[in-house]
Amino acid sequence: MKTFPSSPPAGAKTSTIVYRVPFYDTDGMRIVHHARYVHYFELSRIAFLDEHDRPYREYVAEGLHYAVTRCELAYQSPARFDDRLEVTCWIDWLKRVSLQIGYVIRRGGDVIATGATEHAMVSDEGKLVAIPAARRSVLQAALARG
Amino acid sequence: MKTFPSSPPAGAKTSTIVYRVPFYDTDGMRIVHHARYVHYFELSRIAFLDEHDRPYREYVAEGLHYAVTRCELAYQSPARFDDRLEVTCWIDWLKRVSLQIGYVIRRGGDVIATGATEHAMVSDEGKLVAIPAARRSVLQAALARG
Amino acid sequence: MKTFPSSPPAGAKTSTIVYRVPFYDTDGMRIVHHARYVHYFELSRIAFLDEHDRPYREYVAEGLHYAVTRCELAYQSPARFDDRLEVTCWIDWLKRVSLQIGYVIRRGGDVIATGATEHAMVSDEGKLVAIPAARRSVLQAALARG
Amino acid sequence: MKTFPSSPPAGAKTSTIVYRVPFYDTDGMRIVHHARYVHYFELSRIAFLDEHDRPYREYVAEGLHYAVTRCELAYQSPARFDDRLEVTCWIDWLKRVSLQIGYVIRRGGDVIATGATEHAMVSDEGKLVAIPAARRSVLQAALARG
Repeated sequence: MKTFPSSPPAGAKTSTIVYRVPFYDTDGMRIVHHARYVHYFELSRIAFLDEHDRPYREYVAEGLHYAVTRCELAYQSPARFDDRLEVTCWIDWLKRVSLQIGYVIRRGGDVIATGATEHAMVSDEGKLVAIPAARRSVLQAALARG
Repeated sequence: MKTFPSSPPAGAKTSTIVYRVPFYDTDGMRIVHHARYVHYFELSRIAFLDEHDRPYREYVAEGLHYAVTRCELAYQSPARFDDRLEVTCWIDWLKRVSLQIGYVIRRGGDVIATGATEHAMVSDEGKLVAIPAARRSVLQAALARG
Repeated sequence: MKTFPSSPPAGAKTSTIVYRVPFYDTDGMRIVHHARYVHYFELSRIAFLDEHDRPYREYVAEGLHYAVTRCELAYQSPARFDDRLEVTCWIDWLKRVSLQIGYVIRRGGDVIATGATEHAMVSDEGKLVAIPAARRSVLQAALARG
Repeated sequence: MKTFPSSPPAGAKTSTIVYRVPFYDTDGMRIVHHARYVHYFELSRIAFLDEHDRPYREYVAEGLHYAVTRCELAYQSPARFDDRLEVTCWIDWLKRVSLQIGYVIRRGGDVIATGATEHAMVSDEGKLVAIPAARRSVLQAALARG
């Protein structure tokens, strides 16, 4: 597999959440199960929209969804029960219908995992639709260097 | 993101499971939540080991684990409650400590998703260890063209 | 807490599924996480409807849902990775709008867990509605002694 | 099913967490899937131990676990994506080896769900062991009226 960006484009805005690992995220290897990080990414980008765009529920209320079309994760170091993880994300790129979010998960100074998700905007019926112009300009501002 | 193989190397053995989508896998878009496919991959490679190597519990009983070090998914078409999905996997490549599994998820003739997971063999303590020679030769046979 | 029935009423029909425990159901105690049994109950009652009523998707297609209003579980013995569990369920009782399903989960001769879920029929909008007469008579036949 | 206490014994200490419902907790009825509340209970009692006893990881580090032996949930009203839920818990009773935790989940003034979990203390090997005297007296203080 090819690598993907694991740090934000120069000047891009980021958001960081702190996530304390619950016991139910661990598996029989006594580490966080690898599927759970997909959830951590989701929590992080929800916070990003809160901070730099608008709450995702406002998209949903308008029948708009950032459907996930691709997802990549690279696991560097295991996380464990009760770890405090910092999950940071940013916009890698933005197009008419789609965008990519990049992520890094850290515990203190250690990188636990990196990744990216690609999204396409769809309606309630699952049809591809352009990201509304008002949202695009806000997201572009969060991406562009100042 | 770069693409990854979504079909097996020539001659590689495959395994296919049928998975009926439970309601608890669906989300508020009334489709399977994207994180769930990571679980489907896991079910598929457990079946692959059953058919072409040995039950994974025998690895675990010896303190050996195929820890996931990378995971990629590309979502082509949504899956829904009660769909019967066919999840097929194979070995993409095999090295001393690591290997890659490729996946395709279909519903009838439609491709729902493709992906790959990279694994490194680790001990109970999380140390990298070589895949045992006996296992490597069995896995190599499942990969190599006849 | 009070006990609930852990065996079917005399003459009641039952359904049993076999479920092989995936690694992702285990937690850091190396046993199945207690929340996962709620999913096992769901799989079991879906099979019950298949066998004794009609596929649940046909309810959903008509905008009808058996919303869960109560859930009880008693854990007798832990289950582990790769266990083959038998999950059996039956109807405990049936009323105009609601019904209760009983469950027992076994591994070979051992009881792993028992439980019950209470359901109320609701529309897509979440309003309580009577179970349709045609369904009630079919379900009644699955409950009643011959 | 019989009812269980849905408010704390007089004088019992409580803990409350705020939980914002992620999209991945919702299901195809566009409400929180009923199994997820078992996780909310877990988050709540982890916070209770933090505030009134000691972090649960300190138990785990000593090879001690409060294994769940029973779980009851009553669902009053559905929760939805992005709801801010308050999950409150307390000790219902305490014995030599076991204890019961009670829970109520609220959204503003509305009760969403109530429930209880019963726990038995077990070792890493799954053997029942007495709750250590030092912990018992701390927990007793959190239960007893002043």
